Amino acid sequence: MIFEDTICAIATAQGGAIGVVRVSGPEAISKSNEIFCPAGGSALVERKPGSVVFGVIKDGEEILDEVLVTLFRAPHSYTGEDSVEISCHGSSYILQRVLQLLIRKGCRLAAPGEYTQRAFLNGKMDLSQAEAVADLIASTSSATHRMAMNQMRGGFSKELALLRDKLLHITSLMELELDFSDHEELEFADRSELMSLAEKIEYTINGLCNSFSLGNAIKNGIPVAIIGETNAGKSTLLNALLNEEKAIVSSIHGTTRDVIEDTVNIDGVLFRFIDTAGIRETHDEIETIGIERTFRKLEQADIVLWVLDSLEADMQIKQLSDKVLPLCESKHLIFVLNKSDLNDGNEWVLNGIPSSAEVIRISAKEKTNIDVLQRMLVKAANLPSISQNDVIVTNIRHYEALTRALESIRRVKDGLSMQLSGDLVSQDLRECIYHLSDIVGEVTTDDVLGNIFRNFCIGK
Amino acid sequence: MIFEDTICAIATAQGGAIGVVRVSGPEAISKSNEIFCPAGGSALVERKPGSVVFGVIKDGEEILDEVLVTLFRAPHSYTGEDSVEISCHGSSYILQRVLQLLIRKGCRLAAPGEYTQRAFLNGKMDLSQAEAVADLIASTSSATHRMAMNQMRGGFSKELALLRDKLLHITSLMELELDFSDHEELEFADRSELMSLAEKIEYTINGLCNSFSLGNAIKNGIPVAIIGETNAGKSTLLNALLNEEKAIVSSIHGTTRDVIEDTVNIDGVLFRFIDTAGIRETHDEIETIGIERTFRKLEQADIVLWVLDSLEADMQIKQLSDKVLPLCESKHLIFVLNKSDLNDGNEWVLNGIPSSAEVIRISAKEKTNIDVLQRMLVKAANLPSISQNDVIVTNIRHYEALTRALESIRRVKDGLSMQLSGDLVSQDLRECIYHLSDIVGEVTTDDVLGNIFRNFCIGK
Repeated sequence: MIFEDTICAIATAQGGAIGVVRVSGPEAISKSNEIFCPAGGSALVERKPGSVVFGVIKDGEEILDEVLVTLFRAPHSYTGEDSVEISCHGSSYILQRVLQLLIRKGCRLAAPGEYTQRAFLNGKMDLSQAEAVADLIASTSSATHRMAMNQMRGGFSKELALLRDKLLHITSLMELELDFSDHEELEFADRSELMSLAEKIEYTINGLCNSFSLGNAIKNGIPVAIIGETNAGKSTLLNALLNEEKAIVSSIHGTTRDVIEDTVNIDGVLFRFIDTAGIRETHDEIETIGIERTFRKLEQADIVLWVLDSLEADMQIKQLSDKVLPLCESKHLIFVLNKSDLNDGNEWVLNGIPSSAEVIRISAKEKTNIDVLQRMLVKAANLPSISQNDVIVTNIRHYEALTRALESIRRVKDGLSMQLSGDLVSQDLRECIYHLSDIVGEVTTDDVLGNIFRNFCIGK
Repeated sequence: MIFEDTICAIATAQGGAIGVVRVSGPEAISKSNEIFCPAGGSALVERKPGSVVFGVIKDGEEILDEVLVTLFRAPHSYTGEDSVEISCHGSSYILQRVLQLLIRKGCRLAAPGEYTQRAFLNGKMDLSQAEAVADLIASTSSATHRMAMNQMRGGFSKELALLRDKLLHITSLMELELDFSDHEELEFADRSELMSLAEKIEYTINGLCNSFSLGNAIKNGIPVAIIGETNAGKSTLLNALLNEEKAIVSSIHGTTRDVIEDTVNIDGVLFRFIDTAGIRETHDEIETIGIERTFRKLEQADIVLWVLDSLEADMQIKQLSDKVLPLCESKHLIFVLNKSDLNDGNEWVLNGIPSSAEVIRISAKEKTNIDVLQRMLVKAANLPSISQNDVIVTNIRHYEALTRALESIRRVKDGLSMQLSGDLVSQDLRECIYHLSDIVGEVTTDDVLGNIFRNFCIGK
């Protein structure tokens, strides 16, 4: 596939010492050559691919910047096209000027993800690999990084290719029978063998589908609700957890959601803390709504930290356990006895705590035992460690396609056990293959492609 | 000068499609070689300088990223040392991991500006050029960009070198006389010639000193105060000016100041809008303090926009002109008659407006005539256009050194006119040379150097 236009974009974030402008397309080198003057030696168009040239970008007589230009020739580039990367000083003014200059020379501003889209359409990677590029850029923990890296390097695609090969084998046997449909009794494909193959495929697809909840927890963080009465120290605890983290703190800026939640990476595990309003008995109508919302949010959590003021712990548990405990039945519940600094010598009186729950004494203010709580969280998360070769579904589009493929293969099994005719069964097999092909982008429509790449960042 | 340690840093801002890790120092290539596995061909250490190699960064068996590595060999690099640039996917997790890996292999995290500091200490650029790199990265308008680019490419250094050559010429003649001090009547240097040379040098240094106020206005923005009564529409006008701008909007985040002021680039001229409290007659003590502060801020402005509610313009002028007009005498005063949409058919009654002031009718709310006001601002700024070769002082350190050099050369002139002995005059000449040398970094102390590069960003 050959694109006629040459695209350009700033590929680095604003700020920083270095900024990079990317140019890709049939005229990438000739257009860059028009604005670039090497410090010595031959012009850009005469340079070898894979070489780096120092020089200046000129807008007429005006020198815009001293830059390094890197040359790539098709197909040996990210997009598979002729490409140029211009490494400038990281001034957004300079980067904008260079971009404007390229556009004036006839390049077009790239759409989000257009470089990766071209790489996909030029056969440099399949669609699931292209999607992994965005995940890789967004990765914030060792687990998200491994999943994305494995997917980008084709681990997921290989797994799907294996499944498809098996399915194509059954289907071809089935369809061979159709060619000889005059001979009704003829069966090339041993039905019991087919059934066992279909079961194996169902098992694998089912496993991939099931990996999605793990993938989702890893990608978006394990949901942790911090609940408790307003003065119990929830906010102080959250701040202590956010401040104490060894790794990267970030916020999930959802594109389609209003709530901004704090995520913290603890020992490579991403936790997403769900903000809740303080719970207490109240007759105030508005406050009641807030508390109801807290209970609804509680349902989203896998782990619940119930923060108690240790001076009033017993009373606080008594007041709320009827409401809270039933909601926490399937969750990992940790009682956090806060303000241990105020209650060091006293006995801890705790009634009504379920035997399955864990208890820890901390002082959020003094940051005492926060590290122990963090280790408890990591243990409670209980994530299997992800190896380089694990295939885990993290993408909702893949999950949907796999779910449909699973439905199809189950219909195949039903058809086989009901001894349906080969043409009906092979239709379901084709449908299953179709959904798997959708994941790697072989049958994907332009609309879907547009949606996928729209969520990429500009310059990728 | 040879540094023994190899430094590394992330050179791009967080976010974005691409992130770059920079490594520089004697082991830059060998350390990078330890963590980099090329996709094909020979190892990194065997590659030619100026080549780009595709491959993966590995932490043991784990693949961290697919990257492009660019190789530079001393002295043909930014720092003048062996250097490597690793272009990764723009995930801060990946960039941090690559950085940690390099540090584990024995590299050291670079201090802010350390690459440029090494470039300076390795003789790749003088100090004023090194300082221009930071200005270039911070440039936000065509004028700041040109000044920084000219300085980085040595325009300023050339001007200083010329001055120094002239000074050294006089000084050597003076000092030659000292060698023959037995012969008191001997004068190698014609005193009237010397005087005329000293005057020329004074003229040039004085010109450079004077260019600082222009350079400062260009770099930090021309200060514009928007004053008027609270309901006159000051905020709406400011928003209209901020929204209407064609170019880059930014905020000055001073490192040593609390105030954050809005700056807007209009037609390549940077304006800095000074926020003021509404002015009105009041007996409230706290409000009076706010108004006093407004008047003090007014003094910082070059241009004053006095916003009037056109329905009450006459009265508003009458109330405040005694206080405001004396403060605006040396400033460019523009009366902005706002809310023209509410007063379209009426006559405008304006008394008490000084003849030198300009008047414009706008509607900040409807954004009527904002473009005309912007043109008036650009005209009022009256900045000379900066050509590629203009030497303008923008740096307070340079300004201070030049001011001291100016004092010295004036003492030289005085000494010559008072017929002081050559040794006294030559001492002032040496002092003048010293201050000029300070600018390019030839006599600069480590403390001063440390202060300069501390303000750079990491990775530059």
